[in-house]
Amino acid sequence: MSKLTDVPKRILIGRALRSDRLGETLLPKRIALPVFASDPLSSVAYAPGEVLLVLSIAGVSAYHFSPWIALAVVVLMFTVVASYRQNVHAYPSGGGDYEVATTNLGPKAGLTVASALLVDYVLTVAVSIASGIENLGSAIPFVVEHKVLCAVAVIVLLTLMNLRGVKESGKLFAIPTYVFVSGVFVMIAWGAFRGLVLGDTMRAPTAEYTIKAEHQGLAGFALIFLMLRAFSSGCAALTGVEAISNGVPAFRKPKSKNAATTLAMMGLLAVTMFCGIIVLALVTKVRMAENPAADLLHHGVGVGSGYVQNPVITQVAEAVFGKGSFLFVVLAAATALVLFLAANTAYNGFPVLGSILAQDRYLPRQLHTRGDRLAFSNGIVLLAGAAMLLVVIYGADSTRLIQLYIVGVFVSFTLSQIGMVRHWNRHLATERDAGTRRHMVRSRAINTFGAFFTGLVLVVVLVTKFTHGAWVALLGMVIFYATMTAIRKHYDRVAAEIVAPEEPGDDSVRPSRIHSVVLISRIHRPTLRALAYAKLMRSDTLEALTVNVDPAEMKVLREEWERRGIDVPLKVLDSPYREITRPVIEYVKSLRKESPRDAVSVIIPEYVVGHWYEHLLHNQSALRLKGRLLFTPGVMVTSVPYQLQSSEAARNRARRRQDWSAPGAVRRGPAGERGTGERLAGQRAAGERGAGEKSAR
Amino acid sequence: MSKLTDVPKRILIGRALRSDRLGETLLPKRIALPVFASDPLSSVAYAPGEVLLVLSIAGVSAYHFSPWIALAVVVLMFTVVASYRQNVHAYPSGGGDYEVATTNLGPKAGLTVASALLVDYVLTVAVSIASGIENLGSAIPFVVEHKVLCAVAVIVLLTLMNLRGVKESGKLFAIPTYVFVSGVFVMIAWGAFRGLVLGDTMRAPTAEYTIKAEHQGLAGFALIFLMLRAFSSGCAALTGVEAISNGVPAFRKPKSKNAATTLAMMGLLAVTMFCGIIVLALVTKVRMAENPAADLLHHGVGVGSGYVQNPVITQVAEAVFGKGSFLFVVLAAATALVLFLAANTAYNGFPVLGSILAQDRYLPRQLHTRGDRLAFSNGIVLLAGAAMLLVVIYGADSTRLIQLYIVGVFVSFTLSQIGMVRHWNRHLATERDAGTRRHMVRSRAINTFGAFFTGLVLVVVLVTKFTHGAWVALLGMVIFYATMTAIRKHYDRVAAEIVAPEEPGDDSVRPSRIHSVVLISRIHRPTLRALAYAKLMRSDTLEALTVNVDPAEMKVLREEWERRGIDVPLKVLDSPYREITRPVIEYVKSLRKESPRDAVSVIIPEYVVGHWYEHLLHNQSALRLKGRLLFTPGVMVTSVPYQLQSSEAARNRARRRQDWSAPGAVRRGPAGERGTGERLAGQRAAGERGAGEKSAR
Repeated sequence: MSKLTDVPKRILIGRALRSDRLGETLLPKRIALPVFASDPLSSVAYAPGEVLLVLSIAGVSAYHFSPWIALAVVVLMFTVVASYRQNVHAYPSGGGDYEVATTNLGPKAGLTVASALLVDYVLTVAVSIASGIENLGSAIPFVVEHKVLCAVAVIVLLTLMNLRGVKESGKLFAIPTYVFVSGVFVMIAWGAFRGLVLGDTMRAPTAEYTIKAEHQGLAGFALIFLMLRAFSSGCAALTGVEAISNGVPAFRKPKSKNAATTLAMMGLLAVTMFCGIIVLALVTKVRMAENPAADLLHHGVGVGSGYVQNPVITQVAEAVFGKGSFLFVVLAAATALVLFLAANTAYNGFPVLGSILAQDRYLPRQLHTRGDRLAFSNGIVLLAGAAMLLVVIYGADSTRLIQLYIVGVFVSFTLSQIGMVRHWNRHLATERDAGTRRHMVRSRAINTFGAFFTGLVLVVVLVTKFTHGAWVALLGMVIFYATMTAIRKHYDRVAAEIVAPEEPGDDSVRPSRIHSVVLISRIHRPTLRALAYAKLMRSDTLEALTVNVDPAEMKVLREEWERRGIDVPLKVLDSPYREITRPVIEYVKSLRKESPRDAVSVIIPEYVVGHWYEHLLHNQSALRLKGRLLFTPGVMVTSVPYQLQSSEAARNRARRRQDWSAPGAVRRGPAGERGTGERLAGQRAAGERGAGEKSAR
Repeated sequence: MSKLTDVPKRILIGRALRSDRLGETLLPKRIALPVFASDPLSSVAYAPGEVLLVLSIAGVSAYHFSPWIALAVVVLMFTVVASYRQNVHAYPSGGGDYEVATTNLGPKAGLTVASALLVDYVLTVAVSIASGIENLGSAIPFVVEHKVLCAVAVIVLLTLMNLRGVKESGKLFAIPTYVFVSGVFVMIAWGAFRGLVLGDTMRAPTAEYTIKAEHQGLAGFALIFLMLRAFSSGCAALTGVEAISNGVPAFRKPKSKNAATTLAMMGLLAVTMFCGIIVLALVTKVRMAENPAADLLHHGVGVGSGYVQNPVITQVAEAVFGKGSFLFVVLAAATALVLFLAANTAYNGFPVLGSILAQDRYLPRQLHTRGDRLAFSNGIVLLAGAAMLLVVIYGADSTRLIQLYIVGVFVSFTLSQIGMVRHWNRHLATERDAGTRRHMVRSRAINTFGAFFTGLVLVVVLVTKFTHGAWVALLGMVIFYATMTAIRKHYDRVAAEIVAPEEPGDDSVRPSRIHSVVLISRIHRPTLRALAYAKLMRSDTLEALTVNVDPAEMKVLREEWERRGIDVPLKVLDSPYREITRPVIEYVKSLRKESPRDAVSVIIPEYVVGHWYEHLLHNQSALRLKGRLLFTPGVMVTSVPYQLQSSEAARNRARRRQDWSAPGAVRRGPAGERGTGERLAGQRAAGERGAGEKSAR
């Protein structure tokens, strides 16, 4: 596997950064923009098409509403960008929406946001890859003919790369993102030049087609509902806008200011591209239908199920640049690549959020430590599995996947903005400086409007999309929420149970003596070493213990014990049924019963081998015995390892693994720079002190 | 699951025996016969049919050879029974063919026999269940219409029962076996009475059919080859004959004599039934074809693929008792049940042989201990999986499965008999008593004839069946052989590596001091307990060690450490990248580097929880750290468990599991009665002393 993924990795990623160089890699704005904006910028590849698709239900004539819908999306985009610029200034720690909601609205709101974001990451992977495949497919027919297969293959590739430990590098994001952005701008400019100056008539490949309206002549409430649904679909352009607010620590100083500027640039680029594509689509007469097979007509005849509906962006590119032209192919490739990068960001975001949630004990603790490969892998595999499931179920159809997508985004937008309003209210209550107050009031106004607008959009999305698939996303959120609540409850119960009493004497009986028992099966180097170590430990008593499963073998052991003059008494337990675990457990319990204030130290010699299959051949009885001993109170279990020659290989493997570093590090910024850890640790420590005092009362 | 399998288990099995009552349950002959003979007796349900099937290739006229083939099978059966009566007397320890071959012909021959037997157990399950389903299907059409499904269901049921721990009881075997045997005898007697006394003409349901011979008028070598093939198929009646020689310890005294008598009874019953069924089949004009769809003609027309060819035994029963009559249904049901019981014997035989092989270090050691549930389960699942695979691949068609079956049996027959010849030669070389010598010479003659005859049959089977499927069985044997050889090689290499030197000073540097390190994450009951235990151990130095992944958390920890006045120095390791494992490992290594003659004792507090999913939430860092520490030389790793309340559930579960006892115990006899253990342990001990002396030289 190592070799398998190395070549594409080197090609795509360049040399990986060593983790001790992490501190040097703060991002300048020109790199931060592509790193954080690949997700929102790439969404202009599918959002305009979705608007047209929905409008087509009322026939081609409804397309003339599309500029108004684009305008609404632009206003929303500016609102959201303006709101998040406030977040970035107020929370430079990079905690993002989860932190904002938790701090200002309490843990339940925070957990809701976290659930929404987790679902969102899954959908980012599914939607971006499905859309990327469709864009690639407009240039390479094979890809679109095997859509699901290709989408799954890309997910598998991304997963392997991330499991191997791919470090994000700025360049990786910069080149395709800038190629994509420039490509779209060149397309818009060249289209405007051809249309306005040269007076060319540019025709999209679908310009000749007509659309059979499912509902001809919609009016009144039905028309408004359709417009709102089209607007909801257009809101897909906003997904990923919040990414920068999670990444403030990765920016060069002044961090907040640079992040806010980058956010504004991103918003500007996104709306320009979005509007440009919509306008070009209208001019070149792109025709999109929700069910192209039946509703898209060519000379009055349905195009049939064999028809592949290409994305708006490639149809426009075809009209402007010409089909198969160099620029057309470059744009299609850059679009696909940016969409795959957008999917890759979820691979990084998921474990980062997971680590924050783990710190707050909503997820298993081991997710907390950075660079914990195993825990990270679990997250990656979970994310990839869920995304793959969605891709397969929805046939890698970006239009159907997008129905699920936008709920989560707007749940976190809305809660985050409401949290920001609270944040400013709290600060305004104590702030006296007039200048700062004026600033805060302005920020609060922006966030209030943001909360109102995004909340409205959330309602619109829920109403217009619920039966179209939004319920699936909501169900996913509920599952995440319930799981994380249960985990937190478990940790809280355990924490209450193990909290240390303030008075040392308050604890249950402390042991006064240690009785050591060395388990012996036969006499060889591992057992002799265990005996030597046990003797050095100078516990109160020491004996060797063996289980007699075979009288002949036992006789040999006893004889050798005497012949070697081993000065530790050998206790033999009979086991007529050849069991090992039960007699040992019962003996240990009997020791405890004799003198309840003693602790028993059971010392077990163990072989250490190099391969998992060798491991199957050793230590199995020891493992099971250890498992049972852990449940026996007043016992400590010591392994004395004996490294066999083959263990050398495993040691080297482990050493190599150590040099692995988790993906996503660039976006998170250096570890020392993050504030979240401190804040939450402080909270937790406070909470525990509280619990400690309570139990001491 | 517990409840799910309990009801059928109670119905089928009755109350399980407690393991401490095992000693009382030695088997009288009348119970031992059904316990050990269900496998060979049940094979008369399919063997006669296989003879007719093969003969049908040369047309119905070839059926008149069948009595001669039956005669050859009878002679072979008597030879094998007579030979095994010698085994039973010479090896009362129940080691069976593996022991005989290993002792007399060396480990390679033994391992070959073992591989053959392991393959055989798999095939016993597959063939018996496929045949049982076919017999059941002659009474219940649904079963035969869903042959593969029903066969898999029966395998799953048997597997679940055996995983749960079903104790064989004599009654379980006695009732269906005696019903089956009586049923067949009643059928033979009633058939003879009707035919000879009443002069009835009994007609099998297929009597009207004709067979299109694939090779009409075969003669010369081709005919002989076909006869040999038919004989090979008839040899299926001999499978399982060796079972009694594995079970001598389970007999009442005089064990060997009783076992030999039972063996003779079994042989007599089997040949009578086999011949009776063949004769009745000829009289009632049963017609069987290898490819019934094409070759079985009704009024000159092929019966087509929808035709179900019922087993000979049910066709004969239909002719004798009448279709759907009470006795017909009883016999069909008893036949199916006996065949399922025969399959069940493999579930017991497989782990018994596995435990003997594990004792000889050809299989993982943990298989050795009796009542080791986990190891036993692995064997059960392996057996069931392989049998299920065969059943699915071969469409639960007993005829096709039987092609694979007989090779393994005759490999072990032949090697075992050759081994017996060697055995007598060795004893004759020293024996002086004339009477005993005469006896031995007679036994040797029997075994020589047995070896010759079974060897001949093995060659015949290989020649006639190789391309029909025997190669699959041989491949299976080769895989088992290679795996077991590799495992033995590994154990031998390890044993040589760890053998204790004779002079204590000869060992590598022994540690002179112990440096104890208690890992601390936070202060709570588990860490306080670990500290208390560590202090009691009185090692040379003691310090607490913590990893600083979060400065704020660390500050809180330090403050509490001081406030509580804990009198152990707290060492803090910095970890800017939030790793835990690496800093600890590096610190331990640095301690070892400073004073290489010291050993380091790392003490880790652990939570003990009750459910596996709770376990996922705890100790993961500790587990990984322990895993890495074991590879670090000069380290001992101590777990100090802290039992949380939820661990109570797990403790109770473990306690219940302890009362589980392995199936197959009845056939193995009481543990103390077995000689194999002693013999092999003696050998091993001798071998090790040898190795020890060698290394001391």
